[in-house]
Amino acid sequence: MKLSPEDQAALDAARDLSATTRRPTVPALEERMLLPIPCLDHGFVRLVDYMGDDGAIVQAARVSYGRGTRAVSDDRGLIRYLMRHRHTTPFEMCELKLHVKLPMFVARQWIRHRMANVNEYSARYSVLDSEFYIPRPEELARQAKDNRQGRGELLDPVAAARALELLKRDAGQAFASYGELLDEHGLARELARIGLPLSAYTQWYWKIDLHNLLHFLSLRLDSHAQHEIRVFAEAIGQIVADWVPVAWEAFQDYRVGGVGLSRQALEVVRRRLRGEAVTQQDSGLSAREWRELQAVLEA
Amino acid sequence: MKLSPEDQAALDAARDLSATTRRPTVPALEERMLLPIPCLDHGFVRLVDYMGDDGAIVQAARVSYGRGTRAVSDDRGLIRYLMRHRHTTPFEMCELKLHVKLPMFVARQWIRHRMANVNEYSARYSVLDSEFYIPRPEELARQAKDNRQGRGELLDPVAAARALELLKRDAGQAFASYGELLDEHGLARELARIGLPLSAYTQWYWKIDLHNLLHFLSLRLDSHAQHEIRVFAEAIGQIVADWVPVAWEAFQDYRVGGVGLSRQALEVVRRRLRGEAVTQQDSGLSAREWRELQAVLEA
Amino acid sequence: MKLSPEDQAALDAARDLSATTRRPTVPALEERMLLPIPCLDHGFVRLVDYMGDDGAIVQAARVSYGRGTRAVSDDRGLIRYLMRHRHTTPFEMCELKLHVKLPMFVARQWIRHRMANVNEYSARYSVLDSEFYIPRPEELARQAKDNRQGRGELLDPVAAARALELLKRDAGQAFASYGELLDEHGLARELARIGLPLSAYTQWYWKIDLHNLLHFLSLRLDSHAQHEIRVFAEAIGQIVADWVPVAWEAFQDYRVGGVGLSRQALEVVRRRLRGEAVTQQDSGLSAREWRELQAVLEA
Amino acid sequence: MKLSPEDQAALDAARDLSATTRRPTVPALEERMLLPIPCLDHGFVRLVDYMGDDGAIVQAARVSYGRGTRAVSDDRGLIRYLMRHRHTTPFEMCELKLHVKLPMFVARQWIRHRMANVNEYSARYSVLDSEFYIPRPEELARQAKDNRQGRGELLDPVAAARALELLKRDAGQAFASYGELLDEHGLARELARIGLPLSAYTQWYWKIDLHNLLHFLSLRLDSHAQHEIRVFAEAIGQIVADWVPVAWEAFQDYRVGGVGLSRQALEVVRRRLRGEAVTQQDSGLSAREWRELQAVLEA
Repeated sequence: MKLSPEDQAALDAARDLSATTRRPTVPALEERMLLPIPCLDHGFVRLVDYMGDDGAIVQAARVSYGRGTRAVSDDRGLIRYLMRHRHTTPFEMCELKLHVKLPMFVARQWIRHRMANVNEYSARYSVLDSEFYIPRPEELARQAKDNRQGRGELLDPVAAARALELLKRDAGQAFASYGELLDEHGLARELARIGLPLSAYTQWYWKIDLHNLLHFLSLRLDSHAQHEIRVFAEAIGQIVADWVPVAWEAFQDYRVGGVGLSRQALEVVRRRLRGEAVTQQDSGLSAREWRELQAVLEA
Repeated sequence: MKLSPEDQAALDAARDLSATTRRPTVPALEERMLLPIPCLDHGFVRLVDYMGDDGAIVQAARVSYGRGTRAVSDDRGLIRYLMRHRHTTPFEMCELKLHVKLPMFVARQWIRHRMANVNEYSARYSVLDSEFYIPRPEELARQAKDNRQGRGELLDPVAAARALELLKRDAGQAFASYGELLDEHGLARELARIGLPLSAYTQWYWKIDLHNLLHFLSLRLDSHAQHEIRVFAEAIGQIVADWVPVAWEAFQDYRVGGVGLSRQALEVVRRRLRGEAVTQQDSGLSAREWRELQAVLEA
Repeated sequence: MKLSPEDQAALDAARDLSATTRRPTVPALEERMLLPIPCLDHGFVRLVDYMGDDGAIVQAARVSYGRGTRAVSDDRGLIRYLMRHRHTTPFEMCELKLHVKLPMFVARQWIRHRMANVNEYSARYSVLDSEFYIPRPEELARQAKDNRQGRGELLDPVAAARALELLKRDAGQAFASYGELLDEHGLARELARIGLPLSAYTQWYWKIDLHNLLHFLSLRLDSHAQHEIRVFAEAIGQIVADWVPVAWEAFQDYRVGGVGLSRQALEVVRRRLRGEAVTQQDSGLSAREWRELQAVLEA
Repeated sequence: MKLSPEDQAALDAARDLSATTRRPTVPALEERMLLPIPCLDHGFVRLVDYMGDDGAIVQAARVSYGRGTRAVSDDRGLIRYLMRHRHTTPFEMCELKLHVKLPMFVARQWIRHRMANVNEYSARYSVLDSEFYIPRPEELARQAKDNRQGRGELLDPVAAARALELLKRDAGQAFASYGELLDEHGLARELARIGLPLSAYTQWYWKIDLHNLLHFLSLRLDSHAQHEIRVFAEAIGQIVADWVPVAWEAFQDYRVGGVGLSRQALEVVRRRLRGEAVTQQDSGLSAREWRELQAVLEA
């Protein structure tokens, strides 16, 4: 990931600005402000602005006149209570704004999260840089056998080399055509771009509240999410961990590290705790759910 | 409007806190931070937090690496262009958080704006203060004759005095019953409150982006909005005017002070500009629309 | 609950209309169409329109050309898979429209669900009927001791009688004042209504997709929801059970009857299943979470 | 546009189903049910389901017990009043569900409308057909000179031929590589698809309420929208015109054929109607806005 000298200068100039504020301020995020966290080969996530902190969650939950700190331990207890009981509205009182550079196939997954604000770089209005995502060889995996939408074992080296060759060749050629169509034939930008690959990079400003951000992360940090969007989710996770450490810990405990049991699965657990032997056949669970439950209980 | 000594102390303590930030900061809003703007007899609007400024609109529209200022005049032109052509997403990049104290009948109108975040004081969880809205005599108007949902001329003084007497008596009695039910009989708070009047005050934290806020204001500053919610909209308008002065000016020019003409009304204007005399009968407009158009054109 | 003769006639006339359609149709809902299900003393829920059925969930998940039925057992498996893994978008493809009459304090809780469409009867535009909610004596409970927002044991009969007397007297008086203000003094409707109690009935049309409806029901059928809104949630639950029986069963199994375990609670279960004795002290759970976990596991 | 025999059979079978319903039914839409309207070279829009009709708008606005017809002329007046005064919520009471096949660059514009429900064909889960959009020669336009995001005059025939050659060659090669990566090397589908062009076709189910649909159409029928999405908007417009003819007429009169005047533009009109000569210099309008106003007034 490399910025152009002009973009780097604009970023540096912006980082040099500072002011005094009465707003809740998080020193660890001030350090992070505007600095890109590299993601994949040409992408990044960088923090552009933020509103609120752990205290702001508490303040809104209490509809209080001051900042959110009676006693730090009270605040922590309240935030964990809110997370545990899915009282989600106080988490909506914090807001994060990011500038993200990402491949278009990642952007297409990302944009499905509707409760966010987005301004994307327009390829009708401006010319896209010639940048596209090429996976590292260690990402080139075969279709999973047990999962219709995931990855399984790695490709053998010959197949991997061929895959990289095809992806690079086709994307390179598509960008060469894009350049020719614009520069030599004057084709409208909105048409010239239709031949570009889904691996091409785009950029956007993305703004979202903490509740919806945690929902995004719970889905996109999951092992079933595509590797490439998970890389971005992990970068955002670093920012959130610094921003609202108490809410982040509660999120780890109650969402990421927690598990949901169905009515039937709960009954299996109860019976086993009472000392009964339970088999899949008399569990009320399908074979698949039974396997999933065993995996959860024996991890 | 009066705060309790504890609330005032919490507010004062919060106002005394300040920090250095790299985020866009608006000095005029820093002055306003946390200070209540009185609304009606016991209500207020106070600024709790904000994200972004005029520059943040420009920055998002350009998906740029720095702050939003090439040249101030460029930024103004772009913001006005965005407002004129209803490119609304860059305005979503600014966010405002308010603490509001308001009568429940106003809250019921306000909450219809769904694209916002709200935490309301819970009367299941806490006891409401004995505060209710009583209109000033100069607000006691008769039902409008030409408008099924508005106010017309003032009540005569005798009727006005009787109206105030009834409103005060009933609300006072309802709050007295509320106190008795809670204190003497121990009735659950969630039940005791059901006899309270719609004029009772509630409070909430409310967070909204600038695009949705301007939409809220365009409806709630309108002369057809109920007076009581307009008072709050005007207080918020003062904050927005300080916060994003360029966007606010554009909002005045293109929304508040502008007008929409139907296909038929536009045709009437064209014909009149060509020197034709146009009557309602040959205008394609209903009698009501004709009157409305005359009012617009001759103001 | 009683309709005026005019309203009953309009309802009957509407129920007499029928037509042939190619749209997915659910016979059990056709039976229910337009018929009010009584709720509380004067309220109701009635089905006004619906879109989709269990098959429509499957059809959208598969983005298929036909109706959603390869084989009924396949469809059931897919719907349960979607519910289990929180693939929520296919459930958004079904939509329900209801006409609801409900007390205003219930309406204020209900409206917090933002992902719905609402048209409410306007008390600025029309006069409200003199109808307000009075709890049955067996609902008059004391504030809960272990729960800051719930109900505990019943009031003693003397206190209960006094509570009913106060609620009836105040609401009756407020409606009498409302009538006088409108009829004798001509006060604008938007002002006259501000003295009415939160127990007054209002009405609305409410339209929501199945995903958001199930989220609404999971919160409002919960034992922590206020009794009065739960009554409405249960009435809606009857309709949903008839509408999408397979999705409803999955909702019961994975949401209503299921449970979420935190990272720490899951670890406690794993240790106990391995035969370890676990105490609250070495569980990583707070005393309260420990009690909640025991209740879940031993139910 | 051609369906596979299996898809055509599923569609035919679905069209053969019918049932009796008490729901509002629109005969003209029943005729259209499930039939694809071709769009571009391989795309289509087809109606899958609908809820409501013109009467349902009226019924919700009145919160009434019967169907929406006092007198047809009353209903028309009310719908036009609602449209004119932007009372948008009653239009949310109608809902449309479509199955759409569209190029991915169109899908990326379309999905920016967040207030809709979408299920898209997953290229992680299934293999995409080898279909991509190639513009007709008469669409191959140069970048506009006066508009940074539009099209201007046509390319000369030699350049147009070259453009088509490049677009076809690159897309064909990308799909050939996609086939090789999947069939010969077993690469995971989620990776193999990243080299496909933005012109590749995808499909989705899309469900939206009438208010948000009209907003979508007002933007996507506009002359500034990209031609390719306008083709889809026009197909949807045909369906809406049949579905809610009164609302559609009002939409034409007050939105599509209407115009918004800024405060300054309105003042220019007023002055000219009073007989004043107004110049750009003393109008308060920029040169660009002045030109736009002249164009509007003299059309």
